[in-house]
Amino acid sequence: MSESGHVIEAFDTVDLIHIKRDRGVLSTAQINWLVDAFTRGYVGDEQMAAMTMAIFLNGMTRTEIRDLTMAMLHSGERMSFTGLGKPTTDKHSTGGVGDKITLPLMPLVAVFGAAVPQLSGRGLGHTGGTLDKLESIPGWRANLTNDEMFAQLRDVGGVVCAAGSGLAPADGKLYSLRDITGTVEAIPLIASSIMSKKIAEGTGALVLDVKFGSGAFLKDIAKSRELARTMVELGQDAGVATSALLTNMNVPLGLAIGNANEVRESVEVLAGGGPADVVELTVALATEMLAVVGIVDVDVAAALHDGRAMDKWRAVIRAQGGDPDAALPVAKETHTVVADRDGVLVEQQALPFGIGAWRLGAGRARKQDPVQHAAGIDLHAKPGDVVKAGMPLFTLSADEPERFARALEAIEGAWRIGDPGEPVQDGGPLIAERIA
Amino acid sequence: MSESGHVIEAFDTVDLIHIKRDRGVLSTAQINWLVDAFTRGYVGDEQMAAMTMAIFLNGMTRTEIRDLTMAMLHSGERMSFTGLGKPTTDKHSTGGVGDKITLPLMPLVAVFGAAVPQLSGRGLGHTGGTLDKLESIPGWRANLTNDEMFAQLRDVGGVVCAAGSGLAPADGKLYSLRDITGTVEAIPLIASSIMSKKIAEGTGALVLDVKFGSGAFLKDIAKSRELARTMVELGQDAGVATSALLTNMNVPLGLAIGNANEVRESVEVLAGGGPADVVELTVALATEMLAVVGIVDVDVAAALHDGRAMDKWRAVIRAQGGDPDAALPVAKETHTVVADRDGVLVEQQALPFGIGAWRLGAGRARKQDPVQHAAGIDLHAKPGDVVKAGMPLFTLSADEPERFARALEAIEGAWRIGDPGEPVQDGGPLIAERIA
Repeated sequence: MSESGHVIEAFDTVDLIHIKRDRGVLSTAQINWLVDAFTRGYVGDEQMAAMTMAIFLNGMTRTEIRDLTMAMLHSGERMSFTGLGKPTTDKHSTGGVGDKITLPLMPLVAVFGAAVPQLSGRGLGHTGGTLDKLESIPGWRANLTNDEMFAQLRDVGGVVCAAGSGLAPADGKLYSLRDITGTVEAIPLIASSIMSKKIAEGTGALVLDVKFGSGAFLKDIAKSRELARTMVELGQDAGVATSALLTNMNVPLGLAIGNANEVRESVEVLAGGGPADVVELTVALATEMLAVVGIVDVDVAAALHDGRAMDKWRAVIRAQGGDPDAALPVAKETHTVVADRDGVLVEQQALPFGIGAWRLGAGRARKQDPVQHAAGIDLHAKPGDVVKAGMPLFTLSADEPERFARALEAIEGAWRIGDPGEPVQDGGPLIAERIA
Repeated sequence: MSESGHVIEAFDTVDLIHIKRDRGVLSTAQINWLVDAFTRGYVGDEQMAAMTMAIFLNGMTRTEIRDLTMAMLHSGERMSFTGLGKPTTDKHSTGGVGDKITLPLMPLVAVFGAAVPQLSGRGLGHTGGTLDKLESIPGWRANLTNDEMFAQLRDVGGVVCAAGSGLAPADGKLYSLRDITGTVEAIPLIASSIMSKKIAEGTGALVLDVKFGSGAFLKDIAKSRELARTMVELGQDAGVATSALLTNMNVPLGLAIGNANEVRESVEVLAGGGPADVVELTVALATEMLAVVGIVDVDVAAALHDGRAMDKWRAVIRAQGGDPDAALPVAKETHTVVADRDGVLVEQQALPFGIGAWRLGAGRARKQDPVQHAAGIDLHAKPGDVVKAGMPLFTLSADEPERFARALEAIEGAWRIGDPGEPVQDGGPLIAERIA
């Protein structure tokens, strides 16, 4: 449009909406124009909302998804770590309840000589955010300059920090729009959103932890598989060595759901302990992240037991201003729920526990809200565990005790004690498939 | 939302979008809330755009369409002509090229004792608007107060005027949004838009002229039939006696396409002459409009020949400040296209001729644009007519001769002279079906 002085009106927005509405295929030039014009504000939010709903309902071809990803990637800057002298490998999880894996994973991978540039986000809704968790550590800061990030990757080997707003700004704008217009769960839009950002972040290799199950973004494993395949292809097309694990998110991961308590659990894993599922997934993802950059035949688990991963963790936390020895925040109030009978815990649904922790203050409903670092839930039993009447099942923590009632409301019916021999929820493996 | 002070947040907008996105059915309460919240601005344009695209692609049940229509009707005032002492009957056309039928129809129906409250619109795109045509008449004014309208209906029996913005304001807002977000052509949305306005206009009976064919809004007769059936049911549900004719819009209606020239042709019909197709449709619609209010066994066509319809026309024009004897505007420039060979005119496509007239200045691209009353196209032959090389086929009129080139571009390939015996475009009847 000549009036804006920026955009040459090569296409008519309504024509492009009609193409997708009528199940047609958008060309590379049309998608490039659309993303650019949307980023500049020439295509209005209401027009892009109609387009994304048409995409949601009518889908996109692989070529369209790739074009959309690349157009969003090119809407901003792309980082590069090529001068680092060592391979970079990153992990992205589609988000789950109790998913603190980045915390032990990043130092563990760095132990073996790969650099891990973890540009992370904050939590929204029932899934937590890595930056929120790490900000429980006194002094630790999420915002680094590009030079600080580069130096830390070179000298320490790992970094977890906030992604700059200059990376894939079209994605940021589109995601906010999808959030309020009911088009979040579309695979072409999820895949292009995640991958445009991850490619912009400059990693040489990427492992995707794509969750399925009741606590995941996509409940259905078939949908998760489709998302994983789409993203792996997008990464490979863009020259980023990419693979994915499909992992089970029907029950919470580990025993801690929150922020400070998840850091505590991560430190236990780095000390050679911690819940078996957290250890299993950490080791599997570390092995995969090293494999995609050609580091194979290493005993990853050993580094959790001999202190190397812990040393790396402490170095990373210190490099970002944090005190690894400082006491983590503790909530003012707790409320413990106990078993009402003898039996076996046969059910523990991830989503209601995630919502419960969110309502306690561990998560946020709007981007600008703060989180309460000490709020959350600690589980004392996992599905399959034998329990006795009166035994603690889980403990809620909050700074504001008036939050307990609504959290308990969310959790009500999410767990069940059955008789020995009754089938236990979700006996499937934690790591269901590998996609490469 | 408590902040607005108006809307009680009974529903979450994204939840409602999800319902329609996932092929669910919205309840009456949900649709009422949505329309009210959208009218007040609590539901954003981008959210309503996503919703309308979901409606476009996933459809609506008959109950949902009725709820949407009634919610838009109740978003504003509803007129009433019950104190008039005579039945009211109205006509609505879905719009076509050369469709000036309202002009001879309104006085013709009024001759027989029914009152015709024609609340009309202006043209947009290639279809003309009744008010634009009548404004070619010096002195004639479209804006009347409700009292003026009532008095004219009582004393003269017919009125054509602009609909007040207080009628179905939700529809006005939604239509503007649909126009820029590519969701104009959805039957639930068209039907509820037309019917909410027509019911709000307070007529006791309504005849719908639903066009099909290349120059119509919906090209396909099956779609037009579905639209007609939907609207007839909506009218009947709201207590308005409603029927519909499905009429052919593959070729332009009559010989004049524009504004002043369409008034001229209408006056010819009122004088007992005029093109056969315009006369046929005028008589059929008048007969139907009288039938729906119980006035049957009258010789409608006779009133076109004995001067009664013309007298009524002159009275109506005068009542609204117009001079029925004043000269109509004439364009500064004309350009005539002649036959390049002997033969038969076998094709004359409505849509390109409509676009041609629009480009000459007879129509507008944006609501705020003016129209040029003298601009338009006069046809000198209709499909089936024998033509001789050099004989005029049609004449373009414009105040700005630089408009001829783009108009001719639109019309190029839209007409064809064939050999005698060749099949002629669209031999089907003008009035294809009656739906009641």
